[in-house]
Amino acid sequence: MEGSVRSLPRRVTIREVGPRDGLQGERPLPVEDRVRLIDALSRCGVPKIEAVAFVSPKAVPAMADPAEVWKRVRRREGVVYSALVPNRRGAEAAVQAGGFSALQAFIAAADGYNRKNVGKSVDESMRDVADVVAVAREAGLATEVSVSAAFGDPYEGDVDPGRVVAVSRQLVALGAAGISLGDTTGMATPTRVWDVVARIGDELPGVPLNLHFHDTRGTAMANVLAALEAGVTEFDASVGGLGGSPFAPGSNGNVATEDLVHMLVDMGIDTSADVECLVQAARLAEQLVGRPVSGRLSRAGPRWKPIEEA
Amino acid sequence: MEGSVRSLPRRVTIREVGPRDGLQGERPLPVEDRVRLIDALSRCGVPKIEAVAFVSPKAVPAMADPAEVWKRVRRREGVVYSALVPNRRGAEAAVQAGGFSALQAFIAAADGYNRKNVGKSVDESMRDVADVVAVAREAGLATEVSVSAAFGDPYEGDVDPGRVVAVSRQLVALGAAGISLGDTTGMATPTRVWDVVARIGDELPGVPLNLHFHDTRGTAMANVLAALEAGVTEFDASVGGLGGSPFAPGSNGNVATEDLVHMLVDMGIDTSADVECLVQAARLAEQLVGRPVSGRLSRAGPRWKPIEEA
Repeated sequence: MEGSVRSLPRRVTIREVGPRDGLQGERPLPVEDRVRLIDALSRCGVPKIEAVAFVSPKAVPAMADPAEVWKRVRRREGVVYSALVPNRRGAEAAVQAGGFSALQAFIAAADGYNRKNVGKSVDESMRDVADVVAVAREAGLATEVSVSAAFGDPYEGDVDPGRVVAVSRQLVALGAAGISLGDTTGMATPTRVWDVVARIGDELPGVPLNLHFHDTRGTAMANVLAALEAGVTEFDASVGGLGGSPFAPGSNGNVATEDLVHMLVDMGIDTSADVECLVQAARLAEQLVGRPVSGRLSRAGPRWKPIEEA
Repeated sequence: MEGSVRSLPRRVTIREVGPRDGLQGERPLPVEDRVRLIDALSRCGVPKIEAVAFVSPKAVPAMADPAEVWKRVRRREGVVYSALVPNRRGAEAAVQAGGFSALQAFIAAADGYNRKNVGKSVDESMRDVADVVAVAREAGLATEVSVSAAFGDPYEGDVDPGRVVAVSRQLVALGAAGISLGDTTGMATPTRVWDVVARIGDELPGVPLNLHFHDTRGTAMANVLAALEAGVTEFDASVGGLGGSPFAPGSNGNVATEDLVHMLVDMGIDTSADVECLVQAARLAEQLVGRPVSGRLSRAGPRWKPIEEA
């Protein structure tokens, strides 16, 4: 057996995507409930929150009224709030709403998922990202870009890590301030994470990297561990494990923020977020969506405070 | 970022515990359904199966009639079938039933859980294990021993790895052929796995080690990855993720066999078990227990064969 010393980051940044990725496939919630969830999360010390999306309310009814939600959010100092935007129009609306720290654009690594998601090829979507970066830059905002299906495409199958690097390289050239690689439908496993992260590290050194895992096939937390070992220090997570793209079959379940922070804390990795507060936020999320969430901690309790049998 | 090469085992042995640990907390199933599940699992190429338990049917009604179940099992050549036994009487009944490859005894690492589970201290339980080993030896059978609460005790909190080593050392001295460390209530995280496995490897080198994880707090698959990195090559898993001790609050959910094998296969680690066959077995398990199982793969499908949206 090998020794117990492993090289892991001492600090990890959690980007909470529950109010956006988590809710987008749900029955639309009232504006005040979406605000309540965002405020509950900022109170727990989560440093980054994807709060809203400026997308077509016809295509994604649960994301309607982003400016209204954002206006009512109790903005907490030090929290990086972002808005997801698909194109120039969305970016302009987000800039118009004012007060965001960053815009989040998106594109897929492969045409299969990209076409299902936005009806365009990856190359066509690249022009939308360029528009977003331009609008954001003019407003003095950074644009981070999510690359979906980076570990596999449900329509095309495996995605070559070289393809992920190529798309990421184009994004960096366009002016992306950071790249988030999304395992949109839970096709990643630890060896794939090591492969892709090593390739990105070798070919795009210094580019801020975030990883976004879905627990569709039970691998999300193992993938996080693999990524930590490869030096990744930022992860998306969704309160309660809410989430999943309406255009990706079986994609339900982002890695749950409270489960992830609980594991990291026990491993001595600081996130600045409070586990017991996040358990309460997960229970709020559960109450708002009206069905049990997939995150485990809101049922079991933290390991230092297990929930006793009734 | 570090490189992508990691040292992982090329082969892993899965010990299927669904028919025992998985079913013990469920509404009792008819004998023929329990046989059906065991036979479905052996057909999938699982090399080891904990088939039955010779325990008090009053204490654990779902495990009643072990000899009757075992008599009807279609015993597949090459499969190591074992029976869980708590004491001399259980061991004698298992030997009487005949045909098992091994007996599985158990004890906890800490008094808190041990008392709740069997109403005795760890020291008192050690005498029961000694009896089991003696009966098994006389019958020419090996005894493997499960050490529960090895990564934390829901009643006592943290468990010192030194305590786990001390209990394991006693078991080896008694004649245990192998040790299974159980995270009975899902309190393990990767750093704890590295710590305990390194200690066992240093202090009891060469003792066959199996790890048994529950996904109570979402860490089971990350713990498996940590254990693989530490050189562990045998894991318990339960079809569909069935399981959890009736005496451990919130312990539901062993790591799901089909999810685990799917991840290992994608990582190039051979288990000899067939993923698509296991998905069918998980669906059978779901049908038999009459509620959705926690394993993910039977809903999502393997990454190479995702289930399409309805």
